[in-house]
Amino acid sequence: MRLLTEFQEKDAAAIGKELHLFASQLYPICRSITGDGIRRTLAMIAERIPLRISEVPTGTEVFDWTVPKEWNIRDAYIKDAGGTRVVDFQRLNLHVLNYSTPVRATMSLGELRPHLLTIAEHPDWIPYRTSYYKESWGFCLSHNQMLAMKDGDYEVCIDSTLREGHLTYGECLLPGASDEEVLISCHACHPSLANDNLSGLVVATALAELLSGGEHRYSYRFLFIPGTIGAITWLARNHGGVGRIKHGLVLSGIGDAGGFHYKKSRQGNAEIDAAMAHALRHCGEPSEILEFSPYGYDERQYCSPGFNLPVGCLMRSVWGTFPEYHTSADNLDFIKPKQLANSLRVCATIVDILENNRRYRNLNPYCEPQLGKRDLYRSTGGEDISTDINARLWVLNFSDGQHSLLDIAERSGLPFSTIASAADLLRQSGLLVAVPGQKADQVADQITGNIAEVTSFR
Amino acid sequence: MRLLTEFQEKDAAAIGKELHLFASQLYPICRSITGDGIRRTLAMIAERIPLRISEVPTGTEVFDWTVPKEWNIRDAYIKDAGGTRVVDFQRLNLHVLNYSTPVRATMSLGELRPHLLTIAEHPDWIPYRTSYYKESWGFCLSHNQMLAMKDGDYEVCIDSTLREGHLTYGECLLPGASDEEVLISCHACHPSLANDNLSGLVVATALAELLSGGEHRYSYRFLFIPGTIGAITWLARNHGGVGRIKHGLVLSGIGDAGGFHYKKSRQGNAEIDAAMAHALRHCGEPSEILEFSPYGYDERQYCSPGFNLPVGCLMRSVWGTFPEYHTSADNLDFIKPKQLANSLRVCATIVDILENNRRYRNLNPYCEPQLGKRDLYRSTGGEDISTDINARLWVLNFSDGQHSLLDIAERSGLPFSTIASAADLLRQSGLLVAVPGQKADQVADQITGNIAEVTSFR
Amino acid sequence: MRLLTEFQEKDAAAIGKELHLFASQLYPICRSITGDGIRRTLAMIAERIPLRISEVPTGTEVFDWTVPKEWNIRDAYIKDAGGTRVVDFQRLNLHVLNYSTPVRATMSLGELRPHLLTIAEHPDWIPYRTSYYKESWGFCLSHNQMLAMKDGDYEVCIDSTLREGHLTYGECLLPGASDEEVLISCHACHPSLANDNLSGLVVATALAELLSGGEHRYSYRFLFIPGTIGAITWLARNHGGVGRIKHGLVLSGIGDAGGFHYKKSRQGNAEIDAAMAHALRHCGEPSEILEFSPYGYDERQYCSPGFNLPVGCLMRSVWGTFPEYHTSADNLDFIKPKQLANSLRVCATIVDILENNRRYRNLNPYCEPQLGKRDLYRSTGGEDISTDINARLWVLNFSDGQHSLLDIAERSGLPFSTIASAADLLRQSGLLVAVPGQKADQVADQITGNIAEVTSFR
Repeated sequence: MRLLTEFQEKDAAAIGKELHLFASQLYPICRSITGDGIRRTLAMIAERIPLRISEVPTGTEVFDWTVPKEWNIRDAYIKDAGGTRVVDFQRLNLHVLNYSTPVRATMSLGELRPHLLTIAEHPDWIPYRTSYYKESWGFCLSHNQMLAMKDGDYEVCIDSTLREGHLTYGECLLPGASDEEVLISCHACHPSLANDNLSGLVVATALAELLSGGEHRYSYRFLFIPGTIGAITWLARNHGGVGRIKHGLVLSGIGDAGGFHYKKSRQGNAEIDAAMAHALRHCGEPSEILEFSPYGYDERQYCSPGFNLPVGCLMRSVWGTFPEYHTSADNLDFIKPKQLANSLRVCATIVDILENNRRYRNLNPYCEPQLGKRDLYRSTGGEDISTDINARLWVLNFSDGQHSLLDIAERSGLPFSTIASAADLLRQSGLLVAVPGQKADQVADQITGNIAEVTSFR
Repeated sequence: MRLLTEFQEKDAAAIGKELHLFASQLYPICRSITGDGIRRTLAMIAERIPLRISEVPTGTEVFDWTVPKEWNIRDAYIKDAGGTRVVDFQRLNLHVLNYSTPVRATMSLGELRPHLLTIAEHPDWIPYRTSYYKESWGFCLSHNQMLAMKDGDYEVCIDSTLREGHLTYGECLLPGASDEEVLISCHACHPSLANDNLSGLVVATALAELLSGGEHRYSYRFLFIPGTIGAITWLARNHGGVGRIKHGLVLSGIGDAGGFHYKKSRQGNAEIDAAMAHALRHCGEPSEILEFSPYGYDERQYCSPGFNLPVGCLMRSVWGTFPEYHTSADNLDFIKPKQLANSLRVCATIVDILENNRRYRNLNPYCEPQLGKRDLYRSTGGEDISTDINARLWVLNFSDGQHSLLDIAERSGLPFSTIASAADLLRQSGLLVAVPGQKADQVADQITGNIAEVTSFR
Repeated sequence: MRLLTEFQEKDAAAIGKELHLFASQLYPICRSITGDGIRRTLAMIAERIPLRISEVPTGTEVFDWTVPKEWNIRDAYIKDAGGTRVVDFQRLNLHVLNYSTPVRATMSLGELRPHLLTIAEHPDWIPYRTSYYKESWGFCLSHNQMLAMKDGDYEVCIDSTLREGHLTYGECLLPGASDEEVLISCHACHPSLANDNLSGLVVATALAELLSGGEHRYSYRFLFIPGTIGAITWLARNHGGVGRIKHGLVLSGIGDAGGFHYKKSRQGNAEIDAAMAHALRHCGEPSEILEFSPYGYDERQYCSPGFNLPVGCLMRSVWGTFPEYHTSADNLDFIKPKQLANSLRVCATIVDILENNRRYRNLNPYCEPQLGKRDLYRSTGGEDISTDINARLWVLNFSDGQHSLLDIAERSGLPFSTIASAADLLRQSGLLVAVPGQKADQVADQITGNIAEVTSFR
């Protein structure tokens, strides 16, 4: 349980503050699914972890889709007759409909109105809206701002470009003992929205930093990509290699004050699904497990029926269910250092489970081995046993080559870390031996010499 | 969803009134498991739908049973000393123990008493009782009627005949594209009882009328039969053909004001069981799903272990659980136009589900297809998607050749009709293709040209 | 349902009194995992049922364990300066740490204190503690006793021996028609503790008495053994024969006033697990089914992964969850005649279920057979059917060679005894035939001539 230990040795409050600070540095950038905003974001992540940047040209066919034109923007505003910017992109980049085509015109309020997007129910908030795949332009503003606009002519300017260019994404591969992979994916295309998804970006970056400090059984691949088209592009370019992905997680909206929600992979019974259910049950916060559904984040693509990868999605409040979603109220106050830190802690727990989840075989399967003579039991009978001894009994009884440590943790109700520590101790005492499992196990075994002697023990 | 659409185009209140009217026309007839009462009933049904009448001679061996003698009755009464009919079959045919042998005698109240059947708990109601398989005679009367009978001699007359004859049943076969069948069965042997089972007769008749107006994938067979012995006789004479029955439903007691109860087939996981659970969940009335049990209506025979057909039973209030059951209180006031109409609507929903439930294959299984370029998506991003778009995503994601539309409807929580419409649209857009399934599918496919190209798509 | 019938013919209150009386006779003996205490206990059991006593020498290797030295004790006390026994083994044998090595010394209270064991939370109770596998000595006393001990010198005496000897256990085998076995195991090593486990000893003894009065399909093996080391020793010496154990039960703590708890076997879906869940649901007392866990009584050994026998554990209050556990408060007042008798009744129910649980085949699988002509149905139709008739319909419908009578009892919600009686009657009427099952069935069939003609009936 290396990662969790490392995490716990640090100051959780300091971790939270650091995560929030990084989010606040990324916040002002006007990101979109292409362009310099996401490039600048990836460059800032690359200062912390090794990141390979890919640039995919406009027009590239990716399955049923085509990489769109690249969008960039310098300025945008609506000026009233007096020359005052009543809507100003410089104040908040949400003010422009993302992917707006360039405009420079003077028009009446009546002509302008179809291009103004507001939220009547939250009259002080500015909505976040996009028009990636249909050329259009518009402004997002608060409902009160719109109500205050008087009849008359307005100068309208969107100083953007939409032309041949590239789609950009970043990839951080941390090779492990095996080339079997754990995929961590987060979308990096939203402009000034904090929970959605600076929270995912900063936690994923910190997780990669934690992981890069030591050895691991799996290889870890972190994707920082534009939503939907980025995942589709990556999958199209890596079609042949997706079989290596044994576990995966989409991280998004993991900074707000709500409890956790984990949306299961389409498979529904993947190891990542069981691991996450276990980790959340023991995380000390309220949590809920949701069945897979085809709408959501990039798990939509990873879990499309042709791929059907074991990829779930970790969230706190679920997109679309809280009013701040896709509005200016999803700002830096909406995400909390404490929640960011605990989200990272859950991710570290998951990594530790995946790294240590093995099947073992009890080498003394007939009756209990005598733990007392190995100093693994209490000495005075009649009293209750400790959790540690209980964990040993669980591991011994269910290490029949069929049950994984995660299975045993679930059946026992004990945290995985307790069960894994018991297994370690019992293995060191010569009572357990690992069963050869999937490729990642075998490679790890060659390194540690931890190979099961397949003895006929019945 | 042809039937539901047809149903919804009509006026539900008018449908209910018409169903109730037909029930009221059938109500006065003294039916039994044989004889002219059931013949007259079938003749009235035959005025509305094509009905083949079968006459099976007394003495015919049907599995472990024998077709009984035919019973007919003209009159029955108990006259007091003053010549007044104190119990009169002409007033209500329930007054005679059904299948009573002929009697003509004068006897004291003491001698008569063992032949008088009442319900003490409901002293104004007349019970419905039968003695099909043991020759006997008796009168059913209200408890108060009996208490009012003074000592003295009574003239007792049952002008019935019980002799060699026939057992009669009616069958309406509506051929579909395939000879695979949906069986709808209802018992037609009860005399003046409205819910049990004029409700089943009139709804089944109306369903056959609805169906006969158009094409369908399955063949539909409606049975109007005497309970128990009728089902046994039909099964014995059609033993070789029951393999064609892919889905079946017994309809009985579907006119009272209670919510729905569906008793699952013995198989418990048949398509009809899933279809009915789905339909009832979305029917707008309270409903409950009951496990199969071997006592009940003719599903007892269809679900006997040698046949084990996928036949469930749709009811409203469950037989034996409401006081009016098998009494004169189960009269025309006990059944309601509104409930009759909604029962027909549920049956139409079931037909539509069975007709349209298919497995499809998404022809773009890698990532989502781009719905936007086909005008199947919203144009402005950032807002929530509609139910229709959500249904498309569900159909695309789970159309892997394994999940039926009903499976998808259940997983999504959306009504089958919404899912089926989405599948239609996607199929028309070239994104889906039907997977060759059971025989009914294949025949339908030859008609529509809707055959899956079996391409290796992985 | 022979045993239950025999049980019900007796006076439950008298049975309870008799069970409690036997417990009170066993109570004063100072038992341990070896020595004369358990020998005397077994001798008293042997006066009631045939018991084979085994003596296994100290030093015998049993799997990972070694049979320990034999412990015997004559006296033990702590005398104060005035010569008064302030702690006295003669008053209650719990006062000595079980397996204490001999001591004879005078020492100050300060030196003595590390050897004094108390329970601060229950200052009037004396704890029960042991030190089987680490040589040590000590006294158990009430916390108040200890507080009352004044500074000064004390004379300490434990007149025990710990030397080469034997481990003793008792075994009662009641041969049945088959050599397939039901194992009933209870630990006999605790000194003056009533619920744990005189309750198990007296109920098991009475069950063996009940069983020895007649014929049975299975062989029954009762083990009266020292906990842990006794089960391990028995398993080591009978390794080759454990495959004969088809069902098993550990009995312990079944005399207190709490409801029942049944801890499932490690298999979790063994017939004994289903039988016990059924029996407890119908036993008229509150009950709870617990999942298997590796800590507990000797099911720990029977359910170790190498054996994985279908052995569960029947308790009332669960060890460790009630304050009296392993203290002097688990005395003869803590166990109740009524609860002891009902525990025996549950055991008798289980035996009856195991003895009578079979799969049958309905010889008239097509439609219902006509029960009326065999006088197995009501004669007047229209009324509800009785439970007995209902049970017949359940048995007929589900006797397809797949469902056992216990399966049918569970599905129907009827008690096993009602279902088994219905099956008996139907078999006698020629409507059912038993399906050849496991060995115990076949042997029983040779005796009764109850063999299924395997006719192709479909």
